[in-house]
Amino acid sequence: MTRILYSLCGRDVSRPFSPHCWKIVMALEHKGLEYVERPVPFTEVPKLENGFSKTVPVLRDGDLLIRDSFDIAVYLEDTYPNRPTLFGGEGGKALARFVEGYSQMLVHPVLSRIAIKDIHDMLDEKDQTYFRTSREERLGRKLEEFEAGRPQAITDLTAQLEPMRHMLKFQPYLGGETPLFADYILFGALQWLRITTGSLAISRDHSVAEWFERCLDLHGAKGRAVA
Amino acid sequence: MTRILYSLCGRDVSRPFSPHCWKIVMALEHKGLEYVERPVPFTEVPKLENGFSKTVPVLRDGDLLIRDSFDIAVYLEDTYPNRPTLFGGEGGKALARFVEGYSQMLVHPVLSRIAIKDIHDMLDEKDQTYFRTSREERLGRKLEEFEAGRPQAITDLTAQLEPMRHMLKFQPYLGGETPLFADYILFGALQWLRITTGSLAISRDHSVAEWFERCLDLHGAKGRAVA
Repeated sequence: MTRILYSLCGRDVSRPFSPHCWKIVMALEHKGLEYVERPVPFTEVPKLENGFSKTVPVLRDGDLLIRDSFDIAVYLEDTYPNRPTLFGGEGGKALARFVEGYSQMLVHPVLSRIAIKDIHDMLDEKDQTYFRTSREERLGRKLEEFEAGRPQAITDLTAQLEPMRHMLKFQPYLGGETPLFADYILFGALQWLRITTGSLAISRDHSVAEWFERCLDLHGAKGRAVA
Repeated sequence: MTRILYSLCGRDVSRPFSPHCWKIVMALEHKGLEYVERPVPFTEVPKLENGFSKTVPVLRDGDLLIRDSFDIAVYLEDTYPNRPTLFGGEGGKALARFVEGYSQMLVHPVLSRIAIKDIHDMLDEKDQTYFRTSREERLGRKLEEFEAGRPQAITDLTAQLEPMRHMLKFQPYLGGETPLFADYILFGALQWLRITTGSLAISRDHSVAEWFERCLDLHGAKGRAVA
């Protein structure tokens, strides 16, 4: 076995939670490729593979190293074209970049606000210090002040998911009748929320919650393996 | 010539403004298909083609009538497969439905708030009465109260366009190197704003404004023909 996915964890190595790493777990499963996942704490990431990347996911495929979740997905599609497609053609690949924009620019900020304290509390002491310092610098305020916006963020989340709710009136997945990498982009975001907070923060009968349950069932219920 | 696109106008028939109709103008141009556009006022729409549809666009293609912008785009793709593709494959078609959700659920509400009074003022007297009555019932308040949110809506627009700004860091169009129907979905929305208010309400050097200018240049600058 030469394929290694480096991902992110807190104190508990069995509960990797990074949204971007979950995209690649699902992409590797989708392609039916074998791999070993190696979750590490935040402060170990820069030391991986002789400092190859400041962020995870990093994929080692034999002698090759690839970083960045979108670049890894494109690499997998190009390298294993005879396996199930992650993009469904050139149009699907181009539009997946827009779904990434939606997830990162409109959904992630809301999820961060909901989950930030829970993420902090999952980390070991060294990572907690790193996380608090780097996030408070980025946000320009204390984690606790940022988290005070949590009730409003839960309301905002339903509003930000409206494009998904609209799409799900017509088809069961972003990819149409079956999932594509675009599904895994948003799945990764909500899986991050689920693993760090224990809840999706939306009603169970919301069509996005039902879509998320379908995603948890994919590939031998890979997503459910981490509770 | 047997192809007719019924669209929407105010007093001035030469300035059709419906976002959904502009999607189909661009789709027909993209496919290189000849057509005649017949813009009508709101209150004439239900009388078109013996009451075929309550809304425009409606496309007559020979003996066939098709309504709903997405359904028309799918019809054009399926019926004229040897012309330039509108979706770039099955993945692109599925994800275009998500772009529709983004445009309608997150961008349109903001644009409505910016443009509502200008739209009203473009209409003839009969349509103004219809527009005010139907919109005030839907919104649960007077048009003037709704329009009071305009300054905030202009701020919100930039925030709602963040997924587009992210995507445009990687490629010139939603469709990748060249536009697809997904581009025309959002183009239609901003063209609606441009024609009704005379402005895009975002900075000229915003990457979305630059993308919009590229779209205005497409297909013999079809979009610029209405100022």
